[in-house]
Amino acid sequence: MNNACIPTRCGILSAASVVGKLEKNGPLGGCFDIHSADDRFGQKTWEKAEAEMQRLALNTALAKGELRQEDLDAIFAGDLLNQCIGAAYGLKDYNVPYFGLYGACSTAAEGLILSSLLVSGGMVQRAAAVASSHNCTAERQYRSPIEYGGQRTPTAQWTVTGAGAFIVGENEHAQALVKGVCPGIVLEKGIRDAANMGAAMAPAAADTLLRFFDSTGKSPDDFDLIATGDLGYEGGDILCEIMALEGVDIRNVYNDCGMMIYSRDTQDTHAGGSGCGCSATVLASYLLPKIAAGALKRVLVMGTGAMMSPQSIQQGEYIPAIGHLVCLTSKEEEEWELC
Amino acid sequence: MNNACIPTRCGILSAASVVGKLEKNGPLGGCFDIHSADDRFGQKTWEKAEAEMQRLALNTALAKGELRQEDLDAIFAGDLLNQCIGAAYGLKDYNVPYFGLYGACSTAAEGLILSSLLVSGGMVQRAAAVASSHNCTAERQYRSPIEYGGQRTPTAQWTVTGAGAFIVGENEHAQALVKGVCPGIVLEKGIRDAANMGAAMAPAAADTLLRFFDSTGKSPDDFDLIATGDLGYEGGDILCEIMALEGVDIRNVYNDCGMMIYSRDTQDTHAGGSGCGCSATVLASYLLPKIAAGALKRVLVMGTGAMMSPQSIQQGEYIPAIGHLVCLTSKEEEEWELC
Repeated sequence: MNNACIPTRCGILSAASVVGKLEKNGPLGGCFDIHSADDRFGQKTWEKAEAEMQRLALNTALAKGELRQEDLDAIFAGDLLNQCIGAAYGLKDYNVPYFGLYGACSTAAEGLILSSLLVSGGMVQRAAAVASSHNCTAERQYRSPIEYGGQRTPTAQWTVTGAGAFIVGENEHAQALVKGVCPGIVLEKGIRDAANMGAAMAPAAADTLLRFFDSTGKSPDDFDLIATGDLGYEGGDILCEIMALEGVDIRNVYNDCGMMIYSRDTQDTHAGGSGCGCSATVLASYLLPKIAAGALKRVLVMGTGAMMSPQSIQQGEYIPAIGHLVCLTSKEEEEWELC
Repeated sequence: MNNACIPTRCGILSAASVVGKLEKNGPLGGCFDIHSADDRFGQKTWEKAEAEMQRLALNTALAKGELRQEDLDAIFAGDLLNQCIGAAYGLKDYNVPYFGLYGACSTAAEGLILSSLLVSGGMVQRAAAVASSHNCTAERQYRSPIEYGGQRTPTAQWTVTGAGAFIVGENEHAQALVKGVCPGIVLEKGIRDAANMGAAMAPAAADTLLRFFDSTGKSPDDFDLIATGDLGYEGGDILCEIMALEGVDIRNVYNDCGMMIYSRDTQDTHAGGSGCGCSATVLASYLLPKIAAGALKRVLVMGTGAMMSPQSIQQGEYIPAIGHLVCLTSKEEEEWELC
């Protein structure tokens, strides 16, 4: 069982997304549920704005699924902020058992994996996964306040202002089925450039993907889409190259949420989007409806996370990374066996 | 099911603890597995020392259980550092699926709960829970570097330098049985004094304990010990008072890991110990051997966490808190039914 894909029997009942202005103006702008024109969500600080996004995302996911908080047995939530205050403060008024996660930008997938495992094991009936990032909280914490106008390198990514929430429960009422999960293993391959996280995360993503194919006997041809969370243009290229070197060509079905969420032509975000909110919002509002409609039948979504901190970088450490994989299918694929 | 105790069928196979000098010199000093006389564990920075404690704790727990990393299907780990670098860096050389947690000082219990739920649900065979804190990393991050010699208030607690690791698996080879878990709900009751976390956490601990008794029909008399993680003298008193007001007197069986780990007479730690390492080391090396030996038969252990950050306090926010409960028994209690 160790390191292999774990089969699950559950589904995503509903999902919702909340985004900022740049995301609303991007190519997927029409898909998101809620947005704030000034990225503030009516709050006085960016941190409170991020917490409010988490609250709104979960509230909206519950409403869309015609569920109340009493219908939830667990919440898995996290964000990028020190001590994960986006999740803790944003969700503190929900009277629901709470599991705080820190998976860097892989948090949405980490929460989906744990929700799916608990529901499939019959330990809870319904669980929610919530994750967020905010460009202004992330810039201040990881780099410098946006008012400084610091210049960015070409490999740098743009932290998405966004939150996504997912409700996981039994298959019957699901929009998409969770067929299996392949949790990530922390890997560190000698990258210490915090402005090139795609490169740091690509080997961890490749490791998970290879373990997934190895343990299921499937190949990229079995899927309509393999979407990573936020490798961006730089990391996405590296992932495809690593996979090709391992004899697994994913280029035909590969995409990255960080490449989908912004327009490369009209929105200058350098190497693409990043942050917990990147994969969370793209999955909740763009990919999931396509799976629900059967336009995408079999999809691998992999949350990717760089597990360093500003302090670990200052101390000269390399960047450990992780890739958490979830296999989703449309309901028509109920009979299709993954593993 | 929502908010109630969840029955589990699994046990703790082995556990280990790693501590610093002050803890080694305390009343439980003889119990711990590994210690460093200078709190540095051979590392150049406090953060690297904390990461090394995590590595040592898991390594030792595996060795004590005659297990190898290949025998683990999942690791749940976390700490108090920004972006949880103690866990991510400390455990990055383990080739095991990794779930990063942020539960503040409740992390060991949060990891035990998730390990127990996954093992009981049959989703994994064996999982590890690891948590750490280091006095010098915590002081620097939450307050000021220890070199400043800042004065502490009487309600302040002392962050434990320590890491604990637990391996959860099937009952057969267990030292202690995990009979049930009651995950915490985030609560915030208007405390914003970051030097009085016991007061902030006590209401959340009471909430979990009341839900536990309510859903199981048990009472404090059914247990030999109810141990909270790190409420300390201040928070422990408040918890007992809240419980008494609710008609549940726990004083006869109540203790707190933060009150056990240091001597109040000879070690000036003010209101007691705190930090993820507090409950993790006391449970791993003091309580668990007592349960394994049958000296303690039925024990409730509750990890308690204050989910604020220095930034949220600076922004005038209150302190949200959580209490994660695990019900442990000796193997003789195999027939005893919890819920």
